[in-house]
Amino acid sequence: MVSCARSGSPWKQRTFPIAALLGIDIGGSKVALAVADAQGRLRARRRRATEPSGDAERDLARIAGDARSLLAEAGVRTGELVAVGVSAPGPVDPAHGAVVRPPNLPGWGVVPVRERLAALLGAPVRVENDANAAALAEWRWGAGRGCDDFVYLTMSTGVGAGLVLGGRLYAGWQGNAGEVGHLPVEWEGELCACGMRGCLEAYVGGAAWARRLRRIAPEGGRVAELAGGRERATPKELVAAAREGDPFAKAEMARWNEYLARGIVALVFVLAPRAVLLGTIATAAGEALCFAPLRERVRSHVWPLLGRDLEILPAGLGDALPDHAGIAVALQASASA
Amino acid sequence: MVSCARSGSPWKQRTFPIAALLGIDIGGSKVALAVADAQGRLRARRRRATEPSGDAERDLARIAGDARSLLAEAGVRTGELVAVGVSAPGPVDPAHGAVVRPPNLPGWGVVPVRERLAALLGAPVRVENDANAAALAEWRWGAGRGCDDFVYLTMSTGVGAGLVLGGRLYAGWQGNAGEVGHLPVEWEGELCACGMRGCLEAYVGGAAWARRLRRIAPEGGRVAELAGGRERATPKELVAAAREGDPFAKAEMARWNEYLARGIVALVFVLAPRAVLLGTIATAAGEALCFAPLRERVRSHVWPLLGRDLEILPAGLGDALPDHAGIAVALQASASA
Repeated sequence: MVSCARSGSPWKQRTFPIAALLGIDIGGSKVALAVADAQGRLRARRRRATEPSGDAERDLARIAGDARSLLAEAGVRTGELVAVGVSAPGPVDPAHGAVVRPPNLPGWGVVPVRERLAALLGAPVRVENDANAAALAEWRWGAGRGCDDFVYLTMSTGVGAGLVLGGRLYAGWQGNAGEVGHLPVEWEGELCACGMRGCLEAYVGGAAWARRLRRIAPEGGRVAELAGGRERATPKELVAAAREGDPFAKAEMARWNEYLARGIVALVFVLAPRAVLLGTIATAAGEALCFAPLRERVRSHVWPLLGRDLEILPAGLGDALPDHAGIAVALQASASA
Repeated sequence: MVSCARSGSPWKQRTFPIAALLGIDIGGSKVALAVADAQGRLRARRRRATEPSGDAERDLARIAGDARSLLAEAGVRTGELVAVGVSAPGPVDPAHGAVVRPPNLPGWGVVPVRERLAALLGAPVRVENDANAAALAEWRWGAGRGCDDFVYLTMSTGVGAGLVLGGRLYAGWQGNAGEVGHLPVEWEGELCACGMRGCLEAYVGGAAWARRLRRIAPEGGRVAELAGGRERATPKELVAAAREGDPFAKAEMARWNEYLARGIVALVFVLAPRAVLLGTIATAAGEALCFAPLRERVRSHVWPLLGRDLEILPAGLGDALPDHAGIAVALQASASA
């Protein structure tokens, strides 16, 4: 194994130095692999279904096998891989590069991803949770480019944040910062999956919202119709129905915006960010249903000083995010090595 | 006036040039001046009443005159003053080192403190708002020593925060971070002095609390008695009455803790700090009335992962804070020069 951290020089002694980065985005449904040059420019990429086997060790071996095959395909030789970046779901223990019981990966307990992948791939590995990895990717290539103080909010099943503060990722003590999905937006309000009450995620997270829709969407209404039955309703059908002007869906969307605004207002008073970037659900809902009313709502609840130039924008990378998230983490690793 | 400089100062006997720092803490009631060596060790200090004249230019000239006399007393010669740090009340525009209409200093509009003091004192000047300056001082010499992720909360007339994140002061975009006094703790709740509703400061700030006590403290009750009339009640009498076991005062203290806990819970989910340090009112209320119930309340509303090792502590510098706040800012300035 040759590592940048150990010597920093072997590949530089070559006549034609090649330094490659590998990015791995482990999602609940897909694994995205990408190979990039030392500047993070993509050279090759591949995606496949995650299909967790129930055995983390086997899953990691399969990911490493796919990665080796992609590296070979891209012409990267042994010793030329200088850093591997992993975007992993759920809580990450940064001290050990371990993934801790990700809800979407059955059979994964506390998995020492950094150590295992470093052994399998022969290169230093850095692991970040998916919100942090996405924030890094948006910072380099997406809507956060050139912005040194922004919050990236994941808006899918759950709600999390990656915080770029003062020109660097802020991880918090023991790596736990950015759990903004659990900011209280209604004191002693609705029960959240985390066990607390009134969390932002219990109001605007995709899973919580879907549960609510399955309970309250009108039987025979447009949302139920689009979903093929109320019991199958998700935010996707809600957004589609709201776009068509369905009154129930529009009211639900307004409620969603209201709670999301509360969370953003808290973030603005604490952090005074230049921008707040919103992922999945917000991006799908778009300008008229989400961003325009949200900006108005936030601005009316923060000081002009803080709100006037605040940008609330859709994340920029869209479907390409998984190709860049791991590479962004690898770039951080190679920069700090 | 207090001064610890003596004519036998070792600095006067040195045969080689030294580097000195000057700290200026401009408070609503007192100005504290301090001279320190390049490592921030105090060599001389002086305090006097602020007595604002209504003319910022004249006030600054007087402060500079006092500073020059203290520097001379400490044996610091021209050219040996390498940095001046100013802790200023109210909003500070960091780009221009300007103080913006501090409520406690009548006649001060937008005052270019950095530029004026640099001209008057012949050394580079850095200006921070008092919450940031206090956080820097607590980080170096107080309860935040050795801690790279903490929030310092000013708890006097208003509520503000200095954020030390990842081993440095985080100022936010355009220097506006840490306005945690305006975190919403009751959506559309009580009107705050800032014009918004439901702000933390409207519930736990000293000025707002005093206004409430003057309205609701029982006529002839213990708080009114200690204050010499309900219309003169302040948090000070409330804390004293609560300590004696007065039921009204205890209930008010519990309400204060409840709202303060809400603010801290939000900070913990966003920032995952290692510690939260509380100033004035909390420090005066002490362990039994404030810290013990507050810790319990916060821990029951954040995840064990975030709350287990979280420290909620009184600020450490107490009455000595003004002597250190300006020097802490000067040290930052000389470190980044």
